Formats: sequence, C-alpha cells, structure tokens
Amino acid sequence: MIIVMNPNAPQGSIDRVVGEIEKMGGAAHLSQGKFRTVIGAVGEEANLDQNHLASLDGVEKVVPIMKPYKLASREFHEEDTVIEIGGGKTPQVKVGGTHAACIAGPCAVENEEMLYKIARHVRDGGATILRGGVYKPRTTPYSFQGLGVQALKWMRACGDELGMPICVEVMDTRQVEEMEKYVDCFQIGARNMQNFDLLREVGKTRRPVLLKRGLSASVKEWLMSAEYVLSQGNTGVIMCERGIKTFEDSIRYSLDIGSIPVLDAWSHLPIIVDPSHAAGKRDYVGALALAGMAAGAHGIIIEVHYCPSEAQCDGPQALLPETFKELMAQLKQVAAVCKKEFVEAGELTHA
Amino acid sequence: MIIVMNPNAPQGSIDRVVGEIEKMGGAAHLSQGKFRTVIGAVGEEANLDQNHLASLDGVEKVVPIMKPYKLASREFHEEDTVIEIGGGKTPQVKVGGTHAACIAGPCAVENEEMLYKIARHVRDGGATILRGGVYKPRTTPYSFQGLGVQALKWMRACGDELGMPICVEVMDTRQVEEMEKYVDCFQIGARNMQNFDLLREVGKTRRPVLLKRGLSASVKEWLMSAEYVLSQGNTGVIMCERGIKTFEDSIRYSLDIGSIPVLDAWSHLPIIVDPSHAAGKRDYVGALALAGMAAGAHGIIIEVHYCPSEAQCDGPQALLPETFKELMAQLKQVAAVCKKEFVEAGELTHA
Amino acid sequence: MIIVMNPNAPQGSIDRVVGEIEKMGGAAHLSQGKFRTVIGAVGEEANLDQNHLASLDGVEKVVPIMKPYKLASREFHEEDTVIEIGGGKTPQVKVGGTHAACIAGPCAVENEEMLYKIARHVRDGGATILRGGVYKPRTTPYSFQGLGVQALKWMRACGDELGMPICVEVMDTRQVEEMEKYVDCFQIGARNMQNFDLLREVGKTRRPVLLKRGLSASVKEWLMSAEYVLSQGNTGVIMCERGIKTFEDSIRYSLDIGSIPVLDAWSHLPIIVDPSHAAGKRDYVGALALAGMAAGAHGIIIEVHYCPSEAQCDGPQALLPETFKELMAQLKQVAAVCKKEFVEAGELTHA
Amino acid sequence: MIIVMNPNAPQGSIDRVVGEIEKMGGAAHLSQGKFRTVIGAVGEEANLDQNHLASLDGVEKVVPIMKPYKLASREFHEEDTVIEIGGGKTPQVKVGGTHAACIAGPCAVENEEMLYKIARHVRDGGATILRGGVYKPRTTPYSFQGLGVQALKWMRACGDELGMPICVEVMDTRQVEEMEKYVDCFQIGARNMQNFDLLREVGKTRRPVLLKRGLSASVKEWLMSAEYVLSQGNTGVIMCERGIKTFEDSIRYSLDIGSIPVLDAWSHLPIIVDPSHAAGKRDYVGALALAGMAAGAHGIIIEVHYCPSEAQCDGPQALLPETFKELMAQLKQVAAVCKKEFVEAGELTHA
Repeated sequence: MIIVMNPNAPQGSIDRVVGEIEKMGGAAHLSQGKFRTVIGAVGEEANLDQNHLASLDGVEKVVPIMKPYKLASREFHEEDTVIEIGGGKTPQVKVGGTHAACIAGPCAVENEEMLYKIARHVRDGGATILRGGVYKPRTTPYSFQGLGVQALKWMRACGDELGMPICVEVMDTRQVEEMEKYVDCFQIGARNMQNFDLLREVGKTRRPVLLKRGLSASVKEWLMSAEYVLSQGNTGVIMCERGIKTFEDSIRYSLDIGSIPVLDAWSHLPIIVDPSHAAGKRDYVGALALAGMAAGAHGIIIEVHYCPSEAQCDGPQALLPETFKELMAQLKQVAAVCKKEFVEAGELTHA
Repeated sequence: MIIVMNPNAPQGSIDRVVGEIEKMGGAAHLSQGKFRTVIGAVGEEANLDQNHLASLDGVEKVVPIMKPYKLASREFHEEDTVIEIGGGKTPQVKVGGTHAACIAGPCAVENEEMLYKIARHVRDGGATILRGGVYKPRTTPYSFQGLGVQALKWMRACGDELGMPICVEVMDTRQVEEMEKYVDCFQIGARNMQNFDLLREVGKTRRPVLLKRGLSASVKEWLMSAEYVLSQGNTGVIMCERGIKTFEDSIRYSLDIGSIPVLDAWSHLPIIVDPSHAAGKRDYVGALALAGMAAGAHGIIIEVHYCPSEAQCDGPQALLPETFKELMAQLKQVAAVCKKEFVEAGELTHA
Repeated sequence: MIIVMNPNAPQGSIDRVVGEIEKMGGAAHLSQGKFRTVIGAVGEEANLDQNHLASLDGVEKVVPIMKPYKLASREFHEEDTVIEIGGGKTPQVKVGGTHAACIAGPCAVENEEMLYKIARHVRDGGATILRGGVYKPRTTPYSFQGLGVQALKWMRACGDELGMPICVEVMDTRQVEEMEKYVDCFQIGARNMQNFDLLREVGKTRRPVLLKRGLSASVKEWLMSAEYVLSQGNTGVIMCERGIKTFEDSIRYSLDIGSIPVLDAWSHLPIIVDPSHAAGKRDYVGALALAGMAAGAHGIIIEVHYCPSEAQCDGPQALLPETFKELMAQLKQVAAVCKKEFVEAGELTHA
Repeated sequence: MIIVMNPNAPQGSIDRVVGEIEKMGGAAHLSQGKFRTVIGAVGEEANLDQNHLASLDGVEKVVPIMKPYKLASREFHEEDTVIEIGGGKTPQVKVGGTHAACIAGPCAVENEEMLYKIARHVRDGGATILRGGVYKPRTTPYSFQGLGVQALKWMRACGDELGMPICVEVMDTRQVEEMEKYVDCFQIGARNMQNFDLLREVGKTRRPVLLKRGLSASVKEWLMSAEYVLSQGNTGVIMCERGIKTFEDSIRYSLDIGSIPVLDAWSHLPIIVDPSHAAGKRDYVGALALAGMAAGAHGIIIEVHYCPSEAQCDGPQALLPETFKELMAQLKQVAAVCKKEFVEAGELTHA
C-alpha cells in the first residue's frame, strides 16, 4: 500500500502515519521527494486499513497495490475452475477451462406449453442448460413481473424431461430457500450484483451461481461480489459479462469484451457472455456472441423465442430457433480456434 | 410513440404495425419518406406496448414520446410536494418546495457514546434530521457490516432525546418490518435503487423514503424506481443525488448537478444532495454541498465525525463538527439566493 | 422530426411551430394528448431546421428520426464499399465487403533500421499494409514527438521495397499537402476525429482515410466525421474502432465491439479494429483482435516490435513478431467463420 | 513510481527492473510479498520512463505517484494565478484568485447589427468580456460554419467601442497568426483540447487562452493540455469546465462540478464554467451557472441572444437578455459567499 502525503505535510503527520502502519503490523519505507513524501507500507495488505490511513491528517491519497479479493484471485487458485451444473435427474454440464456451454431459453416463462416448445428448440440447437425467468426485474412497476413458483415447477419438470439442468434468476433473499429446492443454478441479475444480503444467502447454498456484472461495476467490484459468495463456502461462481452503461446509445449496453481477458488474468473463475441483454435487438446478438467466444469466454447465455412478437418481455432481442441453430454452428468453430469445446447434449454424462 | 420502419420494409410489415396499433386502441399516422416509413401511434401511450411493436418484422426502432412514470411526474402533480419527516416524540421536519433540510450524523453507528456526541454536534451545527447506518452495504465481505437492531434502538432513543427524526438505510426486504417500528425515514442506498422487491416493501409502509440514485441510473430510471414506491401508496419519496460513475477518477463519483434542474422540471418530488459519498474526501465536500444548493436542491445529507481517523467506515469523507458548522452558514446564504430556507431546530413544531 | 410541446403550451405556440414547419416546406401532423401536444413534421428532414424548431416558445424537445449523415449511410449506398489502398510501386490492398486486411508496424518510426526490420516481420506474419507514426500525438509536451518528414521518406521507401502500401497519421492541416506525396492512406487519430478543418483537408485529397473513433464519440458522431471527408469528394473512408472512455479502468479503453454490427447496419463503409491502443498491454491484444474479427470487422491495425522495451512509445502494447504470426493464423480462421478473407501478400495484384 | 511485478516473476526480471531504475538515476526499494514483489522507484519521477519500465518482462503494471504536469501544478506555483485579459483600447479584466468575470455574447457572430445589440445587452447585464464565434466547429458539414475574418473585425471594433476585451475560438493552426492581431483571448474548443499542434501554436503567442475541457478528458489530461500551452512560455491559461460525456441523456452534457475543487487543489490556474453548452437548453442554464460559482469557479462564459429562434446556432441554449441580467444578480450573491467578486464594467481600469 502506498501513502502519498500532501505537498507540505509536517513531519508530525508523517510520523503518525508510520506509527499507524507499524501498529497494524506493517513496515514503512519512506521516500522523501522534493515536493512530498511517499510512504510504502509493506506487509499483509489485508491487515492494513486503507480507510484509516486515508483519514489521517496530511494524507493526500492511499493507493492499494494488492487486489481486494482473495478467494476469487488467480493467486489463490492458479488453475481454471471448472464448475458442474446439474445432477439428479439431469446430466452434469461443465463450465470453465476448456469446457464451454450454452444456456438458452425464453426471457420469461409465460406458460407451460411455450416453455416446452422453446426448450426443445434450444436443446436441438445445441444448448445444454435451460434458462427461463420466473421472477422478473422490471424497471416499471406496471409490467409483467413473472409467474413465480408455478413457473419454477414447470422449469424443473421440463429440465428433467429434456435432460437439461436449469438456471433461474433469484431477486429477493426471501426466495432463496424455496428456489433452492428446484434450481440447478441461481442467477443474480445485474441490478442485484451489489445486493450484498442476497449474495450472502446464495453463498450459503451449494448451488452454482451465475453472477451478472452490474451495469456500472468495474471488474474489481464484480470480483468483490463473487468474493461475497465464495466467502460463504460456495465455490461455484460463474461470471457473466452482459454489457456496461456508457455514453453510447446505438446499442442497449456496451458489451465490455476487454473484461474477458482481464478476468482470465486476474481470476480462476469461468466467464460467459450474455449477448441478448447487451444487444437489446436480435440483429446484433450474433456478432456479440461470436465476439465473446473469440475473446475467450466459456460460453453464452441467450434468449430464444419461436414468436418474439408474442413474448411478454424482451421480445425484440429473442433469436428465432433457426437463427440460434446457425449461430451455434459458428460459435463452435470460433470456440475451437480458442481451444474451448461445446459438448453436445447427447455426450453429457450423469453425476 | 413513433415507430421507425427499416429502409425497405415491405408494405405487409407496415400494415401489420398499423393493425397492431389499432388493436391496442391507438390510431396510426403514416409518413412515407423517400427511404423509409415512419408511423406515429397516437393514443394513451400506456396502452401501447412498445416491446411488442419493437418485436414486429420490419421495425427498426420505437421511440416513446411520453415519460414512463406517472405518479412521479410534474404532469400528474403540478405543485412541489412537501414531505414531513418525524412526529411522535420528535418535531416534524419539512422537505420540499421552499423547505430545505440538513440530514447529518455518522456514517455508521459504532457505539452509543459516539452517536450521542456526533448527534449533538450536528444539531448544534444546524442539522434537523439524524442519520446513522446500522446495516452497512460494504463492497468487501471482510469489512465492518454494522451493528443491526442494537444500533437502531440507540438511534431511536438519541433522536427522541435530541428532538431529531432519524433516517436509516434498509438493505434487505426482511429488515423492513422491524425497522419500520423505529425509523422516521427509510434510506434506500444507491446499490439497491433497482432492488424492486425492496422498493415495493418500503412502498407498503407509510414512512418517507430517501431514494439514492443508482451509480449508473439515468434520471428516468431513478424516477421509475420512485414510481415503484409511489405505486404502493407511499407518497413520501425524497430523491437523493449522490454522484454517478463516469470515466473521471480524480474524485470518487461525479455529482450530476444537472439532475437537479431536470428533476425539478420533470417531477414534483423534492431532491437533496449527498456531497459526502460523491466526494469521498472531506476537502471536496463543501464545494459539492454548496453547488447542490445553488442548483436548487432541497437540502443535503452529510457525514460528520469528531475524530474521522477512528471512524469504522468512510472516515476520509467525514467533516469535522466545526467545518460542518461553517459550511451550514454558507449553505443558508446560498439557499436564500435560491428561495429555499433551512429551518433551525428550535423553530420546528410537533405534529 | 417529432416536436414535443411543453405540457401546457398555449395554442399560439403550437400554431407558430406548425407555421414554421410549413415555411420550411414540411407538413405538420398534430397529435393532441391529455397532457401535451406532439407534432410530427413530415418532409425532407434535411430541410427542417431542428435547432430553430427547438428554440421556439413552448417546445420541450425535438426528436429527429432520420440520421444526420447521408453519404455515409446504407440507404445512400446499399452495397458494402470496398476501398483500395496503394498502387504505383506497391500492389493494391482491398478493404471492405469480404476483403479483410491487416495493417501492422511499429507505433513510431524511430530509425531506418528498426523500420525495415519490423516491416519484414509483419509482412512475413501476414500484414499487407505498413503502419508507422512520423508525427505522434502525445499527451505530454515532454515526450518524443516523432521524426517528421525524414521518417515519412523511410516509410515510402520501405513500403515500395517490400511491396506494402503505407498508412501514416496526419495531425495538422499544414501537413496534408506534403504528406499526400508520400502516403497511400491517411490516418486520423482519435483525438482529431472532430478536428473538422483537418477532416476537410484530407477530404480534398484522393487518398483513403483511416478514421479512428474519438474516445467519447457516439457511432452517429463518428459517421458525421466520415461525412465531412465524404462531402469533399473523397469516397475512401475506413472506420477504425479503437475503444472508448468508460468508467472501467482494468484495461486502457473499452473496445466497443457493438459498434461493428451497428456500423454494418447503418453504413456501407468498411470497419477495422485497433486492439493495440484499446488494450494498452500486449497480453490483452490477441483477445480483442479476435473479438473484433468475430464481430464482423474487415481487418485490424496492430503494433509490433521485436524489442518492445526499447520502443520510444507504447512499448507495453507492442506484440512480438512471433506472437503476431500466431495471432494472424487464428484471425484467418475466425475471419473465415464470418465470411471474410485475409489475402496473402503474394496474392496481391498491382493496379 | 511503483512497479508491480507479476505473481511469479522470476528473480531475473526483478533484477532487470532494479537495474533499469538505477540506470535512470533512481533508487529501487523492494518489497517482497507472499505472492509478488513490488518495487518502489525513488528519485525524480520525470527521469523515470514509465513506458519503458512497463515494457519489461514480468512487469504487471506501473503506478506513477507524481502528477505528469509541472508548470500547471500547485506545487510549482503555490499562489492562485490571476490572468489579465484585454488592454490597448479596452480596460483589463482580471480572472483568478478573488476575481470573477463573466464572458458573454452570441454563440456565433451572424452580422454586425446583432453583434452590437447583444454586446450592449450583456455589458448592461454585467458581463465584462465579449464572446462570439467566427469559426464554428459543427458536427455536420452541412451547417453554418461561421463568417471568418469579417466577423473577427466586427468583434474587435465592437469590443473597442464598448470597452470589452474579446474572446474568440480558434480551430486551425493556420488561423492563429491572423487571429492574434484581433483577439484578446483565444478560446480552444472541447473537441480541440488534444489538438496538440494547435495548443503549441497558441502557446507561442502571448494572448491568454481559454482552454475548454474535452468531452472525455480527465482532469489530469486537461491539465496536461494546459501544460502544452504553458511549456511554450504562455502563462495565461484559463481552464473552462463545460461538461463531460456520460451515460445520462436528460441534459446535453454532465457538468462535472467536482472538477472545480479538484483543480483548485491541484493547480494554480483559474477555472470558469460554461453552463450554456453543458445544458443545451436555456431552462437549465441558470442552475448550472449558480452551481459552478458555488463550487468555487472564477466566472462563467455564457450565451445570450435577444431572439434565440433566429440564432444560426445553438439558439435553444441562449438566454434572453433580461434572464441573463437576473441571473447575474444571483451569481454575484453566490460569488460573495465563496469570497469571489464580479467587477462592474464601470470599475475596470486600463493597463
């Protein structure tokens, strides 16, 4: 940790900072420049309280050198983590390392029939995990909010019947216990990425967690949210890049493709890409999905609907089944260039 | 609502859009340009499903004209809303219209003694509402997370003793019922601005809600979150600008001063400014607070500590009591220029 | 063009707006809602003065429907534009449509020997156009600013000897005339994307122009800058995505991968990607380059150096020649998936 | 300067970095942590080549501690700089320290009569410097581009007649020499903030330079651009905050109010605020102007027009003369709270 003092900080302030660093068990190296003093605090950075040091008189700023997350870091776990989703009546699907997976399905579960119909389409197209919203985070209180537990039961039955593990978004701490009975993988939405109570609750379960990146979260903050889940003993976190808010308004969100190699360097956790929510418009979904795999992602999560104009939410971004199938063929080729492999449903094995 | 068709959309697609608009009870006006057709959909915009129209074949984009919120809008309620906080054992404090208020206190309640000490300081300095965190949203799971219900009881007792209504952050739907017994005003933090379940729960209470702006929320999205609360029958929403995420890193967040006149034009709800969290550093807090009031805010929420280097969180941004007092004197002068008034604690009346 | 009136705009204001629209040769369609009137202005949007209409009393906002650029638009020119770079002593390289190209070389030309050495390396690796800065835009006045005309002469001689057209950045209107004698393609840097005088000057030449996107330019603004060049009669504009400024600081700039399918929808101009400046660090360059091609780009521009630690600028982002060669092999495979082809130097033909 | 090594950087890489630091005349302090080595490079930071160090094998990143600008820094010049604009036939106007000034006039000079009319209005309202564009940076090549030298002559004559120094934007290096004969203060527009050749050219003159902040420039980059001008011997740089690009679209640009106290801490240069271009709409101009002064600015630059709907550019943001006059009365009161003073035209003295 580096403590930069104000240009004219008196000797007393400098001494105080040095004393505080030593009190925390660190060692202080002074570097007295022409205009100011810079203090390097050496020792376990976790034991050095950045906030406290920044509050001391005469301190201009404190620059941490180490990353604030531990369990999520590559240093802590050097090999790529491979996460297994599913089990019980469905086969297990691997995500991470050389294993790529496609999670697909409708935005929201609207009724039993449409769910089964779309599920068959995406399985035929190459998806091995089924997605489908039962509680929907809507920006307006006047929109369709999801069908809740009823839809959850349909998802479970459908997944079991087709041999697809299911991934469903959880929005409220009060839903965790009930949902844990049904889902193979929890999804945390972008708007809840820093809902710390919710992170803790899913961290207490032993279901994998798909953690979407917040719309204005830095990669560091995103990994800190992963750390919340990991710190509860749940080791199954899958990061999901879904675009960030920028000034650009020609597309819904800016897919931050750079986060993929950065995460790969900083963390052992797998990362997948959500091209549907970033694009907001089906014409742009394919390009974003392909770019994500080319940048090194371990898979995609994508919305498909056989009749988008009837969808109760996000119809404009849903791919038609045939387009999805064609896209999967391209994705497999790009994955191969990047030494990843999408496994076919028929090749999966049970736990 | 304006529907812009693709350059070469066939007549069939255009007819389909017109038909759908009419089915929803609207009327369609066509404007056939050289390159493309633009369709104006007239009628109650609430009845026109933007999503559905955007999903139809041949549609390039749909541009809504009306704002998506209703109860929060100036059109719905032309006069400025004045919200009263407190009652019971404390006087009532007005926020909105010409009434400005200062909410001050420690970042987190650390123990009973420090709470009372800071509370007296801020009351003497000119604050009329007491703030203090009991559950703290921390970006790392390894930091101090607040003292919970015990701290809540101290807050209530302290507020009652000093005659100051209290404002406390709520983080989890499961906390709402218990907290409602103690607090005069709920605070929703920036990271929970789109925690829709939480918004609904506080909307069901009859306590005013201080709604902080999300770090990447547009003014429109922020008002939509207010609408969630209002739609449950709770009319007491106070907007709180606390800075947004931008590329600039010389200061913690960029206080979006422009949101103040925009909110004033679009909504009847009062708005206050949080200079402490935007600045992140005490040297910059005063300038942001003054700017907020000059732009037309109805008050500020600010962190004060008599010994910032001992604070368990956010010490670097806490003002010293004497600095706070001097700042309040300047704020009162600026408020007067903008036709707002901070009322002294001694002049408040009970409900 | 849609004119949204203030909620209570008087009839006189509405009449005035209608009158002005008709004066400009347009027709006005009124839509009188419960709260406000919305006016659709029909006619050649180019003849309707948005600014003037927005200045009229009672107007809340004016929403243009058509894009502000013409010559750059897909509507104006439906087929992909293919641009030919080079001629004279070098073969011609095609960029656009199914033709992908790799532009590579050092960041700055430092001396004759290093230029030839790097040029041979990149040609062997698969590049067909040579890049190299002779005037360098540096954020500090104290850094190396480039070798000017001397370096330009080396570039020309080297390009001619190796059979590679050359692409060089121009920074000042006063350099255009002299540079035109040497270069096959002008590069406009990100910081000059809205240096309108410079755009006009290169627009008057008949050399292709590689137009880098400004750090905070929307796709629309970027196309408007292309329009400046095109409006002078120069039809050879190549768009170059090189990352935008966002809040994310884990990588130098955020490569806006979404701009590639958006540009493809809106414009006929080719687009290439600059992974070097976006990444800022060689470890991330490959992922960004691959993502760019997978999203549909027509090529890349990339920095290579055989000894990055000796480079006078941007060493950390330069690829080593062997890494570059391996990357090109992957890029060719990804390009094939997206129906683009990189042509080998040996297969190029002279004009 | 802090050099953070990769987790498993071999000893040889560490030794190389230490050797390079010593070669540059610095001293290296090693801090060997559990996972990685961090090297503190002590010595004149200007002599340490960050780029070179970052290029070495095994280096993860280099964190500079000192600011990259010198002449613009508070350390270099502790007192506030006061800049004098005008002289010759006009009085001199001071900007900086306790001296606040208002620069006002039309967006563009459209003809002689309107210029004189507006100039009289703004002088009567309290402005002491006249602004007016003669070359206009327009995002579309099809808009009005300014009247050039003819308009410059009118500006000079009008300023002399009314006793107001003039401030005019320069866009092209080729205009500097001619404009120097007429103007009292050069304006560099936001889009040219990193047009380094232009900065150098105005730096060679001895006219003060109003340097607008680029739309995506950090405060540090903005000060680096000031350094370009200062490094040529021109000491008269006035910083102008005019809003930055963010995701928020409810107002044209986000006025970054935080830049004002930050600049005050980092630099001795005066700063003024441009509320007109940030707001884009006259209703919001007043709030932004007041906020700027409350945050500590040394003045404002503002657009005024007696008939905005006739203005050839930016009419929607022009204030009416009477609104401007009322705003100035408020600005004077706010300035007084912040210990700044606007001097009346009648109280100015000649050089």
